[in-house]
Amino acid sequence: MRRYLTEHPWKIIEEGFDPERQKSSESLFSLGNGHMGQRANFEETYSGQSLQGHYIAGIYYPDKTRVGWWKNGYPEYFAKVLNAPSWIGLKITLNDQVLDLNLLNIRSFNRTLDMHEGVLYRSFEVEFGGGEIVKVSTERFLSIARQELGCINYSLKLLRGTGNCTVEFYLDGDIRNEDANYDEKFWEPVGAQTEGSFGVLTSKTKKTGFVVSTGMSTKVLLNHQLVDIAPTKGINKNRISLSYRLDLNESDTMSLVKLASVFTSRDHPIDKLSDLALDMCKKANVIGYAELKNEQVLAWAEKWKTSDIVIEGDVSAQQGIRFSVFQLNQTYSGHDPRLNIGPKGFTGEKYGGSTYWDTEAYCLPFFLNTAGPDIAKNLLIYRYKHLEKAIENAAKLGFRNGAALFPMVTMDGEECHNEWEITFEEIHRNGAIVYAIYNYIKHTNDIQYMDDYGLEVVIAVARFWVQRAHLSQEKGKFVILGVTGPNEYENNVNNNWYTNYIAAWSLTYAVENLELLKERNFARYQELSDQLQLQLPKEPNSWAEVAQQMYLPENKKLGVFVQQEGYMDKEQIMAADLPESDRPINQNWSWDRILRSCFIKQADVLQGLYFFEDHFDLETLRRNFEFYEPRTVHESSLSPSIHVILASKLGMKEKAYELYHRTARLDLDDYNNEVHEGCHTTSMAGSWLAVVEGFGGMRIINSRLHFNPSLPDLWESLKFIIRFRSRIIGMTIQTNDTTIELLEGESISVFLKGKEVSLSESR
Amino acid sequence: MRRYLTEHPWKIIEEGFDPERQKSSESLFSLGNGHMGQRANFEETYSGQSLQGHYIAGIYYPDKTRVGWWKNGYPEYFAKVLNAPSWIGLKITLNDQVLDLNLLNIRSFNRTLDMHEGVLYRSFEVEFGGGEIVKVSTERFLSIARQELGCINYSLKLLRGTGNCTVEFYLDGDIRNEDANYDEKFWEPVGAQTEGSFGVLTSKTKKTGFVVSTGMSTKVLLNHQLVDIAPTKGINKNRISLSYRLDLNESDTMSLVKLASVFTSRDHPIDKLSDLALDMCKKANVIGYAELKNEQVLAWAEKWKTSDIVIEGDVSAQQGIRFSVFQLNQTYSGHDPRLNIGPKGFTGEKYGGSTYWDTEAYCLPFFLNTAGPDIAKNLLIYRYKHLEKAIENAAKLGFRNGAALFPMVTMDGEECHNEWEITFEEIHRNGAIVYAIYNYIKHTNDIQYMDDYGLEVVIAVARFWVQRAHLSQEKGKFVILGVTGPNEYENNVNNNWYTNYIAAWSLTYAVENLELLKERNFARYQELSDQLQLQLPKEPNSWAEVAQQMYLPENKKLGVFVQQEGYMDKEQIMAADLPESDRPINQNWSWDRILRSCFIKQADVLQGLYFFEDHFDLETLRRNFEFYEPRTVHESSLSPSIHVILASKLGMKEKAYELYHRTARLDLDDYNNEVHEGCHTTSMAGSWLAVVEGFGGMRIINSRLHFNPSLPDLWESLKFIIRFRSRIIGMTIQTNDTTIELLEGESISVFLKGKEVSLSESR
Repeated sequence: MRRYLTEHPWKIIEEGFDPERQKSSESLFSLGNGHMGQRANFEETYSGQSLQGHYIAGIYYPDKTRVGWWKNGYPEYFAKVLNAPSWIGLKITLNDQVLDLNLLNIRSFNRTLDMHEGVLYRSFEVEFGGGEIVKVSTERFLSIARQELGCINYSLKLLRGTGNCTVEFYLDGDIRNEDANYDEKFWEPVGAQTEGSFGVLTSKTKKTGFVVSTGMSTKVLLNHQLVDIAPTKGINKNRISLSYRLDLNESDTMSLVKLASVFTSRDHPIDKLSDLALDMCKKANVIGYAELKNEQVLAWAEKWKTSDIVIEGDVSAQQGIRFSVFQLNQTYSGHDPRLNIGPKGFTGEKYGGSTYWDTEAYCLPFFLNTAGPDIAKNLLIYRYKHLEKAIENAAKLGFRNGAALFPMVTMDGEECHNEWEITFEEIHRNGAIVYAIYNYIKHTNDIQYMDDYGLEVVIAVARFWVQRAHLSQEKGKFVILGVTGPNEYENNVNNNWYTNYIAAWSLTYAVENLELLKERNFARYQELSDQLQLQLPKEPNSWAEVAQQMYLPENKKLGVFVQQEGYMDKEQIMAADLPESDRPINQNWSWDRILRSCFIKQADVLQGLYFFEDHFDLETLRRNFEFYEPRTVHESSLSPSIHVILASKLGMKEKAYELYHRTARLDLDDYNNEVHEGCHTTSMAGSWLAVVEGFGGMRIINSRLHFNPSLPDLWESLKFIIRFRSRIIGMTIQTNDTTIELLEGESISVFLKGKEVSLSESR
Repeated sequence: MRRYLTEHPWKIIEEGFDPERQKSSESLFSLGNGHMGQRANFEETYSGQSLQGHYIAGIYYPDKTRVGWWKNGYPEYFAKVLNAPSWIGLKITLNDQVLDLNLLNIRSFNRTLDMHEGVLYRSFEVEFGGGEIVKVSTERFLSIARQELGCINYSLKLLRGTGNCTVEFYLDGDIRNEDANYDEKFWEPVGAQTEGSFGVLTSKTKKTGFVVSTGMSTKVLLNHQLVDIAPTKGINKNRISLSYRLDLNESDTMSLVKLASVFTSRDHPIDKLSDLALDMCKKANVIGYAELKNEQVLAWAEKWKTSDIVIEGDVSAQQGIRFSVFQLNQTYSGHDPRLNIGPKGFTGEKYGGSTYWDTEAYCLPFFLNTAGPDIAKNLLIYRYKHLEKAIENAAKLGFRNGAALFPMVTMDGEECHNEWEITFEEIHRNGAIVYAIYNYIKHTNDIQYMDDYGLEVVIAVARFWVQRAHLSQEKGKFVILGVTGPNEYENNVNNNWYTNYIAAWSLTYAVENLELLKERNFARYQELSDQLQLQLPKEPNSWAEVAQQMYLPENKKLGVFVQQEGYMDKEQIMAADLPESDRPINQNWSWDRILRSCFIKQADVLQGLYFFEDHFDLETLRRNFEFYEPRTVHESSLSPSIHVILASKLGMKEKAYELYHRTARLDLDDYNNEVHEGCHTTSMAGSWLAVVEGFGGMRIINSRLHFNPSLPDLWESLKFIIRFRSRIIGMTIQTNDTTIELLEGESISVFLKGKEVSLSESR
């Protein structure tokens, strides 16, 4: 863990420049607007260590897989999000010396991400070789109001000296992914053009053939007066530039405005792209930077209205949760059901920007509560659209009869991951996809979703589980062999309790919902039965049988569920007893040692107890928590949040608070020493859960909202807003007092610490 | 399985040319002489599918590893044997048309490997585009008498037409490995020179810096008269050529003699290499092809004298076993303790040409019995020399106190493999290395080896096992978690019976031998204790404790040992009930399906029963064999042989005979559909074991030789020769009569079917 940034309720602040931290800060200060994202790379030249990253949602490349030893069933390709043509570049020279923070003497440096505004600020003073001193102040944002627009306002004041200054505004299509399995380039040039102070570069991805036109508008002001000179053009197939040259005297301020548009063939006809990109730049130029920024601030204010969480008395906790909410809102706006949420959002290349079960298990409740059911529904529809591929995927692995195995990692429904222990074995993801449907309907009461989409998925998953389990003659129970649970520090285990439990639950859920549909909508029931060639009643009967007879390993003596068979044979060491130098174990221990240890990467049995809390009594939860948490090293970003929620429920306030910091400030404090690769965007939804379900104690039980708040001692108050069945509800929790307000919607009664409270809209 | 080759007791014969089979035949007709090997690539141009392969023992390259997802502990490099500069090339044109079997009309084709002579013959007739017909007859061998020499005699008779013929003799350093992780070239040019009809090309491997000088002597004869013309030289940094041009009339015969030398910096000073290569060519040229071939035939006769196996009544079986013995003798001559036996010998690139546990478990007894203890001892010394690296390897995985983990795959002691489930988990190999010491001493009574070398290895391995096992509180026994047994169709299992058994045995063996050394040679005992900082008696006591308390899974109801925990939970299906279209399952099933099935790749529990047969009664062997063999798919080349031996002991003659063909003719009949990648050289030692220990029933029990022969019904007789404690013994087994002859050495008595028989040398 490294404290480096300044604590502030609304801002992320870096004071002073540390080149060793540049890649980390590039991640942390990333911008995004749902359509695209941009790491906090410098506009001007920077010759030091940097991970260049501009990502466009849904633009990917199927990189040829790289494996040690090919195994049957491995996918040929790994779809990954691409570093897209760069739009931010400004090459600035003063008296022929390049402005480059890696080479010049830095007198001061400040980088600030204003989360309230959604604007990245930077200012610094540098001294050039000839003694010239300049002060640079920059602003940058990706417009929420106009998703295809990015804006830069870059001002340079000459504090000492005089000189000739050249400024090259450029667009660069000659870019690479750091994560390229065979060092290939993924883009090829299509066209480049300039028109006055405007330019457009068009590039195409190899194989997938996505076309992107990137436009720029360029403007130079001297002491706030437009410099009316024609730029020098530089055009080659992969790069265009517009250069200006001007003389600066001491105290002169040069301002550069660069407005860039990014249009893709995902949204527009290919032959219109470059025109659209150009037009957007011209239009934005007319609107002007100030007004565009104003739009941005207003748009973010709108987002914060329904998603802000206010913590008083603990700036560090406040900053962490706002950062989480900010990043989630930057990543996914829910306007496009073809998109999903990559584990690193738009902040890095790692994990390929693809969809994992994080979406269903962690992100869905955040968007349900802050953005509303329509947005959240698109996350379910995304998987529904991939059902056909999931059935193909299962068929490749030998499953029949319309069984579906949703991919572990995907961009377009096709499985991308290729480690057998994950790809083929981490099948619990199939359960999370059903759980998300259950969770969505529990929250929204949108039963129609089940009829129209949900049940098809639920049945296809049931058909998978019923084949994947088999009756052990030895045990007289159904077993599921050879799996990897959520705790990926165990591979290829038998009867992982979590997997078996969620499989059994999914099967029961399928049986029940098929029955409910029959009662509710017989026509649709018949239609679906025909369409899926359901064998009735044989198939649901077999689902019920497997569910009822599922083997669920348990240690009766200790009163705990057993993570998987053989777990109790392990050397039982507590995480707290590990030497500090061994942690994180995934960076210090060989893989086999991790595998045979008792250490748990992230909630596994406890993930099940979190999902199905209402199936167990409090003492069972407590015994399992007290058994498993001390064995958990929390080396997955998804781990601490679930433990916060359970600890909070169990009244373990200190444990909850300690783990809250680990989730909400995971990236800000770089607990896992890896933020240079990007932020843990999906797990930020876990931070939201930790606050709302953990400290807020929110639950939906039998269609009713419950709150059992329990604030950390340090916190004076906690305020958050949730949506529930067409209502917006505001919570204000203080140590001894909780206020619940109905901000929008019809009257409703909810439960506060078990007592029913009636709510009506105040005005 | 594909029958394609002609059966013959001494020859491998291919009649007619099938380009689809070319790569397979290139493997099967490979030549080797212990120093180097050469696939049966054509000398003349061939533009069809081919895997070019010339391999030099001990010349390797550490190719950068390729993995899907890096795991701590993975080695950075995979040392692999290299396709070395090519020495065989002859480019022949007739009337400007290239002689290329891929382009010309083939009238006849025969390829014959004469195993008795160690010479590869080829003859074919082709028709050129202009109607010219030529008949080509070639001979090639790698000299056993002069290991740095390869010889080609290539004759071309013009059966129809006349024409101008050009012949380019060349050496080519511009070569690649097909198995190169990042398509890199592994060689760089050093120098090239010619002198009259001689030439030398010198090349160097990247990174490892091995230097190889390849020399050639060229000679052209027309109708058996030397053609005395000066060749045209072609020299570039990676290739040299000497070209001759002559006019041929109908019925003319042109003969080309190419003698090539291969000298390496492994054996000679770098600055002498090219001179040595040149001198060898000149000398060989003076000796002449006929005499060199004569030497070859005599040298092979010498090898066959002590290693031939004669089977009468079954040509197919005879051909299979001679092919096995031939390939083993081609691969390893035992003159260099730095060398070992790669799984494919010199016949292909797959598996990197590195050393596996095949050497200890399969090859050692072959060389002990046919080549003698000094040769076999070099195989043990090879591992002894790697002890330091094995200790480093274990330290990387977290083991201390001089514990050694020998690598799964290695060239120079460094671990090369990088799949966690094999590299880190297939630790039973450590047991085989101790077993080989035990086996060697059992066979030779060379107890001095234990004092000088063996015990250091035995103790280092004991120190590994004692740390790798731990006491399960649940079981009150020592357990070994997270391993892969010999059956690689199970990964990361707990308490693999074979691993636990051989671990316990190794520990006991260490305790006993430390005690024996103390009694036998106290000074050495003390020296070793000091050197290894042995804690006495604490360490051996702990070894004994772990050995005694080792958990060995067993199913008492069925009376069988259980392959690993959880095995009995699997769906119990017999291999015979698998649809033919599913086999081999490793080509038709996804990896997860294989893993969770009950199917066994190769002997696992049965490997242990084979090694430790004398620890178990016959009924235990029978029950386990009858349980496991029907679940075994024999998809490892190492599988059938062990089952032949056990089946033979159990009187299951039909099963033994069926599986014998699968081992001895595995490559000739291409059972696994993969011989194009190379032959299964190490498993050929299993064929030898199948004959001698299986049908011959040879065992060493309490230092005495036993034979319990049991011939397949078809066989009229079986003859083989073994070495035992300075004696050479000849066996002739007929259905109702067995003759045992002492061919060399002092009188000895042996047991034939339990009855003692005294043997004295006949002359």
